[in-house]
Amino acid sequence: MIIDCHGHYTTAPKALEAWRKQQIDDLGKPGRAPSKGALKISDDEIRASLEGAQLRIQGERGTDLTIFSPRAMGMSHHIGNETTSRHWSEHCNDLIHRVCTLYPANFVGVCQLPQSPGVRPDNCIPELERCVKELGFIGCNLNPDPTGGYWTDPPLTDKWWYPLYEKMVALDVPAMIHVSASCNPNFHGTGAHYINGDTTAFMQLITADLFKDFPTLKFIIPHGGGAVPYHWGRYRGIAQDMGRPPLKELLLNNVFFDTCVYHRPGIELLLKVIPADNILFASEMVGAVRGIDPETGHYYDDTKRYIDSIEWLPAPDREKIYHRNVAKVYGRFAARAAKR
Amino acid sequence: MIIDCHGHYTTAPKALEAWRKQQIDDLGKPGRAPSKGALKISDDEIRASLEGAQLRIQGERGTDLTIFSPRAMGMSHHIGNETTSRHWSEHCNDLIHRVCTLYPANFVGVCQLPQSPGVRPDNCIPELERCVKELGFIGCNLNPDPTGGYWTDPPLTDKWWYPLYEKMVALDVPAMIHVSASCNPNFHGTGAHYINGDTTAFMQLITADLFKDFPTLKFIIPHGGGAVPYHWGRYRGIAQDMGRPPLKELLLNNVFFDTCVYHRPGIELLLKVIPADNILFASEMVGAVRGIDPETGHYYDDTKRYIDSIEWLPAPDREKIYHRNVAKVYGRFAARAAKR
Repeated sequence: MIIDCHGHYTTAPKALEAWRKQQIDDLGKPGRAPSKGALKISDDEIRASLEGAQLRIQGERGTDLTIFSPRAMGMSHHIGNETTSRHWSEHCNDLIHRVCTLYPANFVGVCQLPQSPGVRPDNCIPELERCVKELGFIGCNLNPDPTGGYWTDPPLTDKWWYPLYEKMVALDVPAMIHVSASCNPNFHGTGAHYINGDTTAFMQLITADLFKDFPTLKFIIPHGGGAVPYHWGRYRGIAQDMGRPPLKELLLNNVFFDTCVYHRPGIELLLKVIPADNILFASEMVGAVRGIDPETGHYYDDTKRYIDSIEWLPAPDREKIYHRNVAKVYGRFAARAAKR
Repeated sequence: MIIDCHGHYTTAPKALEAWRKQQIDDLGKPGRAPSKGALKISDDEIRASLEGAQLRIQGERGTDLTIFSPRAMGMSHHIGNETTSRHWSEHCNDLIHRVCTLYPANFVGVCQLPQSPGVRPDNCIPELERCVKELGFIGCNLNPDPTGGYWTDPPLTDKWWYPLYEKMVALDVPAMIHVSASCNPNFHGTGAHYINGDTTAFMQLITADLFKDFPTLKFIIPHGGGAVPYHWGRYRGIAQDMGRPPLKELLLNNVFFDTCVYHRPGIELLLKVIPADNILFASEMVGAVRGIDPETGHYYDDTKRYIDSIEWLPAPDREKIYHRNVAKVYGRFAARAAKR
């Protein structure tokens, strides 16, 4: 069993983007009340959007199941206001639910949250609860910077976020810490803002005692943990200079890294430096990098090939990375998998 | 000969900080005209500040020369205005000049620039010229985010920066792209803002044709290039998806990485992934991480030990990294070295 913990519905039918475009266009129109409206997409359109893409690739690469959420760039919490985000998130999450219902063997859902800059994250609780209790989702994506690259909301360790964490703990769901599109011209989206978001979040977690307050709260840091494993010595040293506990003790019961690193030397470093207990297999396929690496003749994002090629990785560690850790991080995964 | 291209005067005599504190205190006082005033530090105080620190460590670790600049955190371009930054930069650079004059065999100078948020970088030209022509400096530190973590000035590829680049090219000096302190509570300074700054700058350079406009402009990206070498496949793939030339062709005549990565697996990845022609030895000693790694019994920032331990690194590559590349990147280094 190989579970890819990081997939987004990047190939959703065009009607979704059209709905969003209309929503954004309406923002500028005076007197136009925000309306959730309806999204018309047939089951056949959903099937067509996946069968040539994620489903085909699962088959080709030999992965079994993808933990699937709305397109990360698409979340764009910086657009409009709280209502804008709520309507948009509900549509996106409903669509993920339909995918998971059509292909229960291939996809398990994770939700987008209706975050909005300057709005307390308490507003996300009803949608999280709906997605987990009614739609059977097993986690959420949490944007550490709803402003899209201006970083003016409080850090993840601030009590600002605590009501949402309380609900996550109560529902037994983890969050993948994942920024969305950047509207700051300094930050390229997938090339800078994504990786910076990962690095920033990890460093925030070093400086505070969040996991004393929430011992069972769990975060996945995507894109191989941003810059963190490459600079693991720096992070161990900074924590030590600050008089913080060793990283293992401070964070590693609660923080996990995915394997979205798109070349073999990067994956090898990740596997060398971070304990196998803290790594979850992922590819973010049909995502940030879609081409074929001319140096290998294979897709950059075919991360399974890199892992398979690391001959020194002990078999039990490989199993943890490919599937065993998922049940540990996603408390609702086992029950969900049994239902399928 | 081993040259450390990345050292800051983090141990400067207390009078420097006292001057700065007074300058900042005066900012809030109505009617107080900004004044450069005088900085009283004796040669003996300078000697005392270095002999137990940078000079001792050069001797202990077997490095010969440090390319030395004012403390990076101290630049704090976000404080005050253009005049604040000018007075402060002049004092800091003068002090570096005194260090280099007292210890010409051990230090070569690189300057801080009087950047200020929202102020065109043209204002940095006189100080750059003074430092290079009068003080014999061979480069500058360029802050890609003078706001200290809010990133509201234009990206490095914007024409906003071009007059400064023209002067750098005319003077034949490179810039190390180095942010300063973060005043954004989301970004820990050395743990997030520094690394994000490196990653962000590199990605900016991928998206534009800056080096077509300035074929001889040279940048050093410190801290091992931020997240870039760890995600080298991602960057190659993103550039390819965008229809940009291969990174080697696009950037590697102009962009260089230092070796400030504080554990052996990170250094090994850097040396595997980035051509030796593009790596400069550095430690940033007495800097971001000051402790001893309990796993090795050696200082985290003793990067020479990691490089020395990579047995597969060919001797000619080691020479490039330890000193040969310096003459290529810092056009004024050879003349300066001959003078010593």
